[in-house]
Amino acid sequence: VFSTITIVGVGLIGGSMGLAARRTGIAQRVIGVGRDQAKLQQAIKLGAINEASTDLAVAVRDADLMVVCTPVNSIAQFVLAAATHAKPQALITDAGSTKATIVKEVEAGLQKLDCQAQFVGSHPMAGSEKNGAEHARADLFEGRAVIVTPGEHSSHESVDSIEGFWQALGANVFRLSPSEHDRAVAAISHVPHVVASALAAGTPPEYFPLVAGGWLDATRIAAGDPELWRQILSQNRSHVLNGIAAFEKVLAALRDALESENDTQLRNLLQAGKNARDVVGSRHSPARNPG
Amino acid sequence: VFSTITIVGVGLIGGSMGLAARRTGIAQRVIGVGRDQAKLQQAIKLGAINEASTDLAVAVRDADLMVVCTPVNSIAQFVLAAATHAKPQALITDAGSTKATIVKEVEAGLQKLDCQAQFVGSHPMAGSEKNGAEHARADLFEGRAVIVTPGEHSSHESVDSIEGFWQALGANVFRLSPSEHDRAVAAISHVPHVVASALAAGTPPEYFPLVAGGWLDATRIAAGDPELWRQILSQNRSHVLNGIAAFEKVLAALRDALESENDTQLRNLLQAGKNARDVVGSRHSPARNPG
Repeated sequence: VFSTITIVGVGLIGGSMGLAARRTGIAQRVIGVGRDQAKLQQAIKLGAINEASTDLAVAVRDADLMVVCTPVNSIAQFVLAAATHAKPQALITDAGSTKATIVKEVEAGLQKLDCQAQFVGSHPMAGSEKNGAEHARADLFEGRAVIVTPGEHSSHESVDSIEGFWQALGANVFRLSPSEHDRAVAAISHVPHVVASALAAGTPPEYFPLVAGGWLDATRIAAGDPELWRQILSQNRSHVLNGIAAFEKVLAALRDALESENDTQLRNLLQAGKNARDVVGSRHSPARNPG
Repeated sequence: VFSTITIVGVGLIGGSMGLAARRTGIAQRVIGVGRDQAKLQQAIKLGAINEASTDLAVAVRDADLMVVCTPVNSIAQFVLAAATHAKPQALITDAGSTKATIVKEVEAGLQKLDCQAQFVGSHPMAGSEKNGAEHARADLFEGRAVIVTPGEHSSHESVDSIEGFWQALGANVFRLSPSEHDRAVAAISHVPHVVASALAAGTPPEYFPLVAGGWLDATRIAAGDPELWRQILSQNRSHVLNGIAAFEKVLAALRDALESENDTQLRNLLQAGKNARDVVGSRHSPARNPG
């Protein structure tokens, strides 16, 4: 149990963490930090946070745990700012969709500051194409994968604390190195995002009135915020480019089978896709898929 | 109102048509035709049909309207068999995901048989990765697009009747030529299916435990039956190949923007995908998306 948790960036993820931390009792007091007073007041009304502040230095002063839930390009700077103003040995984590760049920048920065705060990166695999605390849910992390990525300077104790925090919110915690994380999420999140965007952007508008559930499902994540995703893809450039190349190979195999009228090969490739989808889908209750 | 409707193939689509036709009162009697007695009895229990038969010739004898809901490769032969045994001037439609090949084969066959039955092709855009009458829903077609594709020999009267039938089930009817239909559904259904299959088949299995809602959404349709989809893709080969080429171009533009670190271009392409998804998504209530 943490007596005070400070959440920097109270949107879908930060807001859900606040709701979940308060409901589970893992936090006695949750402080939200943001730039927009109206949004912070809304987060208080929603029960996501107890208190709000637009001043990071003040808001982290008493915190035992700080969680930075901002767009990936600003995570490192907020972690370092939080570390500067935090109690000695306070814990800091984040919720960014990339890890190697952030962990590297944070660890270099903490050494430079000669700061005793402990940073351990996290990535809850529980986002959505929706943003904003109004979509926050106390059960957002229940049964979901959260990847925790210790850096070179992370103490065993701090890694255990961060993993325990996520487990208290109901998550299934996986421990990967920052670069293992980035390679994995390129395949399961970043490449699917690029593919969904290409599908949506490439559909001739005259066919929009005809679309059905298949197109809507396949393109749902393309509704995500373009600037947030540009930052994510750019921070994970090399793994995403490798992942796109791997996807293009499988697509080319399907195309070649269709073009050469190789029915057996075409059916086998479709079967391979179904097998993968069925294996993964059977582990997730349909009711838990975000709408 | 039709006094008797005969549905050949009582799965998700055929079963939903039966449920909807009975609930709306557009049919007084619905006969289901299939090979599997147990499945037909289940369809009766579910209320999708009143009567069942494994003998097509008997089941279509009194029908005013016959709907063939079998896999695309067998639609033309069932339509022609139904026409042979039907009352003169009976109406026949289908629910196949391709149209040009089917309409051509049926029209040639009807001329050869010198048969007065009227065929007008249909494609309800309301499928799912699920099969079987147990997933049938009386409201499956409500607010959904159904494309009706008159052939060269379709009378105005019969086209109007088929369109009226779908409208009675709550569908939004669009009239396209068979080849216009095939080009459109390549873009909005067949290419997304191939892309979803490639995404699912290409995901390294060691990452399966980490996936979240984005991957599950983007790959959902890959769970569809491989043989049904092989038939669909093969029947619509040229349009699907053109559609894949168009998709590959958009994907290459995204890849190039990422590779060349052209942030503006990358964000613009992601924004184009979001714009398309938002426009289409806003026309569909989320609750109506098949899970």
